[in-house]
Amino acid sequence: MSRIAYFGPQGTFTEQAALGFVHAGRDELVPFATVPQALAAVREGDTEAACVPVENSVEGAVPATMDALAEGEPLVAVAESVLAVRFSVLVRPDTEVVRTVASHPHALAQVRHWLAEHLPDATAVSTTSTAAAAVAVQRGEFDAAVSAPVAINHYPLRELATGVADVADAKTRFLLLRRPGALPEPTGADRTSLVVTTADRVGVLAELLTELALRGISLTRIESRPTKGRLGEYRFYIDLLGHVAEPRVGDALAALHRHCRQARFLGSYPQAEPAVSGDLVAASNEDFIAAADWVASVRQGAGA
Amino acid sequence: MSRIAYFGPQGTFTEQAALGFVHAGRDELVPFATVPQALAAVREGDTEAACVPVENSVEGAVPATMDALAEGEPLVAVAESVLAVRFSVLVRPDTEVVRTVASHPHALAQVRHWLAEHLPDATAVSTTSTAAAAVAVQRGEFDAAVSAPVAINHYPLRELATGVADVADAKTRFLLLRRPGALPEPTGADRTSLVVTTADRVGVLAELLTELALRGISLTRIESRPTKGRLGEYRFYIDLLGHVAEPRVGDALAALHRHCRQARFLGSYPQAEPAVSGDLVAASNEDFIAAADWVASVRQGAGA
Repeated sequence: MSRIAYFGPQGTFTEQAALGFVHAGRDELVPFATVPQALAAVREGDTEAACVPVENSVEGAVPATMDALAEGEPLVAVAESVLAVRFSVLVRPDTEVVRTVASHPHALAQVRHWLAEHLPDATAVSTTSTAAAAVAVQRGEFDAAVSAPVAINHYPLRELATGVADVADAKTRFLLLRRPGALPEPTGADRTSLVVTTADRVGVLAELLTELALRGISLTRIESRPTKGRLGEYRFYIDLLGHVAEPRVGDALAALHRHCRQARFLGSYPQAEPAVSGDLVAASNEDFIAAADWVASVRQGAGA
Repeated sequence: MSRIAYFGPQGTFTEQAALGFVHAGRDELVPFATVPQALAAVREGDTEAACVPVENSVEGAVPATMDALAEGEPLVAVAESVLAVRFSVLVRPDTEVVRTVASHPHALAQVRHWLAEHLPDATAVSTTSTAAAAVAVQRGEFDAAVSAPVAINHYPLRELATGVADVADAKTRFLLLRRPGALPEPTGADRTSLVVTTADRVGVLAELLTELALRGISLTRIESRPTKGRLGEYRFYIDLLGHVAEPRVGDALAALHRHCRQARFLGSYPQAEPAVSGDLVAASNEDFIAAADWVASVRQGAGA
């Protein structure tokens, strides 16, 4: 039985994502109150892995995740999960009139139009998580909760509506993190995450991204964050398509390492929703292997 | 009397930032429950301006702000404010023992070490905002609230501690937004914000940033966000040093406009904490004016 930490409480989108990583009968999910606590659990060996949100989270913990991954003992992502942000509206079985609707403020913001159309007279009330709203409805404090679909598994409530979302294709992304070890095998549709720290100098980010572009590597995400406590430094979170085991990706990471004060590898793992990669211009993995072979043979006096 | 909307409730860091934008006796602050509601108020002319967090917010509303600025009727920032994230711990005047400490989960995460040292036996309880924690303490629901310093102005509480923060230099940035109109005058230490949408193509961001680097322009922030509902597109939020009225910045923005499907100007405004700009390499404003004069004279047959 291996334990997997997740950013709780039970009944949130993060639990729903964590369930997707679980092997039935073999893994046990353990909720933690904050992202740093979930990451501390895996760092300290209390759990085998941790599932946390990294992008566009409904419950709003994303900056906490990124900062916690950039500092402290290294952790490496071995899998990702992308969930559609679609809510269930839960009520007690005997509820007939909905006067109050509770949820995390970010969730309420994402169903504003739906509420205006379907429950125009209900007052929206903020709670600390979507799951806390379900608990409060169960206790009779509010009439309805806007919750992750998985919440219905934990509370004896009734689904007044499902698939609720103002924007049909909003998504949240989660990572499964472990202590460093063997990497997942390349699948041909992988993503690599890293965080790099650079001097604050005009053009430094243009240089980094040109190194990637020259190797035909697609970025899927970039975000700058101020580094805590060190002036004149910038930190960038970068997701790109490809696996560090690929020659062109390894070569690109080596180039970033040369340009940066610090580079931390955050994992190469299969894409949850394989992306169409851009056209490669003289930068396929075969091109890289052939070019390295050519330089090696030139150096040995065996080619020209 | 002009009305200024802000992301409330009363007693949060956003109110504290908004107070810095107010002209005493001339402006009135009006709290709104969400960032989109505060922005809607200024868009619809209900208020003259809106103050919202954009970076590293304690209350966690930043993605909401960025998305709400990228879509809907344009708004333009005319001022920014940077607040140190230092909390006050508030208790009722007669409190002697602190058994429970309440705050927004992000605030609790930022004072974890302080709590472990000074209130090791207190249980941490999450509330929807730092101000909601102060209200709950006033009502007797909890013993202490971790709040923005401004909260003491609204609630009859006592400061058990002030200047509380695990990380001494954590900061939150706020913008004051208005409907488009006359821009603030350049001060020599300005920042320009914009959001651009590009095709999803290898190297497109490297091209944009190279256009900025070649003009000696310092980035202070970049963040990618998926565009809602359109596949194969990326949106970037970019902050850079300089004012659009400067020749080199105007020239750079024109270059970005040429590379992007859509470019939206989010304002040029004085930096709250003037940054040291990087070295300019053949890209000062004087260089730009001289170069344009030269091309114009060449075109007229008057130079060579």
